[in-house]
Amino acid sequence: MSTGVRRRMGVEERRQQLIGVALDLFSRRSPDEVSIDEIASAAGISRPLVYHYFPGKLSLYEAALKRASEDLAARFAEPHEGPVGARLLRVMRRYFDFVDEHGPGFSALMRGGPAVPADGVRSKDHVSATNALIDSVRQAAYDQILAHLQIAEAPPRLELVVRSWISLAESTALLWLDGRRVPRAELELQLVHDFAALAAVSAAYDEEMAALLKTMVKDEPADGPFAELVGRLIALGS
Amino acid sequence: MSTGVRRRMGVEERRQQLIGVALDLFSRRSPDEVSIDEIASAAGISRPLVYHYFPGKLSLYEAALKRASEDLAARFAEPHEGPVGARLLRVMRRYFDFVDEHGPGFSALMRGGPAVPADGVRSKDHVSATNALIDSVRQAAYDQILAHLQIAEAPPRLELVVRSWISLAESTALLWLDGRRVPRAELELQLVHDFAALAAVSAAYDEEMAALLKTMVKDEPADGPFAELVGRLIALGS
Repeated sequence: MSTGVRRRMGVEERRQQLIGVALDLFSRRSPDEVSIDEIASAAGISRPLVYHYFPGKLSLYEAALKRASEDLAARFAEPHEGPVGARLLRVMRRYFDFVDEHGPGFSALMRGGPAVPADGVRSKDHVSATNALIDSVRQAAYDQILAHLQIAEAPPRLELVVRSWISLAESTALLWLDGRRVPRAELELQLVHDFAALAAVSAAYDEEMAALLKTMVKDEPADGPFAELVGRLIALGS
Repeated sequence: MSTGVRRRMGVEERRQQLIGVALDLFSRRSPDEVSIDEIASAAGISRPLVYHYFPGKLSLYEAALKRASEDLAARFAEPHEGPVGARLLRVMRRYFDFVDEHGPGFSALMRGGPAVPADGVRSKDHVSATNALIDSVRQAAYDQILAHLQIAEAPPRLELVVRSWISLAESTALLWLDGRRVPRAELELQLVHDFAALAAVSAAYDEEMAALLKTMVKDEPADGPFAELVGRLIALGS
């Protein structure tokens, strides 16, 4: 029963600690600029001990990315209660929280240049693993949206609207990170409206989409974001 | 003065021929699946002779990508005459022509997995060169749009609308390639409307954008795509 003595961590506990430390560093600067020495120092252990748990920076990066992906996907979960527009707005807030917390790492990853190791090459397996994680987050977002719309199987035009809107949300977040010249709260609301606008454009030319859109907006309150947008658009045109 | 004898090509001419042959092959199948042997065979020369002009598949891929980028950027050029909506629709048609012609290569490139050589690694320089070419095409699209809107320096919200719309056009084209379940003509028109819709959403909350939008639509004809969309949206709401 000793006190004041640092307890030795188990293997899995140490691995999880290292992943957390690495994720924090990879989030705050471009992963290319973070060294194993720095990770070891931040974790309070020696460089060889880091290698004992992870064969290299790349495997540690992949583990950190996996944790970040799971974290982000978890933020998409939202109770199926109340107007859909307000639900989407809450998810957008948590999405921008995530982007804010992981800014430089998120940018580096989404711009296609994650964690190239010191020898300047990266394997095909690494590229595939990274892309698979990005795709899994996009798929989680897609599945959540369909679930909130209560649609089991999306017709092609709805799939297009939802998936292309997800890419719009990604590029909007990336552009926001580059200088933060527009308040994020404005962009969170704008993305909710963009979703409605893209669905409306598709609905303007397709009956199936028009029927879907009517179902989507029928429970929106008169003081919710959708109604507000419509009011503002009408004012704009007059 | 011989006839019927194959003329020997000069170095630059041979290089250009090889780039054309390679681009054609890289466009029709995923670049990963195209071998130097195949390129040599399609060009009617020996494998060692290909290596005489290009040190490897990667440098040939980069050269082909450069030509494709220039080709695509050139298709954005459109006379500054007539309604802006109709101009954008013509550019969208040429954009989908390009995507159609280079389908598998375009998909592989935009999904972040271009031309990994046989040894399974790719250099940081290659990743940078590839990303720089993609960015140069996006920048060309951005510059063209601003020029057509007659805006020298875009305020942050307009820059966001234009750049995020460009990424929307990319993802829409990629989703279209994956099964072609929606007619491309519909998507070309939809993207023109999406541009107007995203600008309108931004304008609904910002006076500067509202003023810009009014300038943008003031010359649109009553039978043009913008007016048609507005009519259809109003019908949808009634």
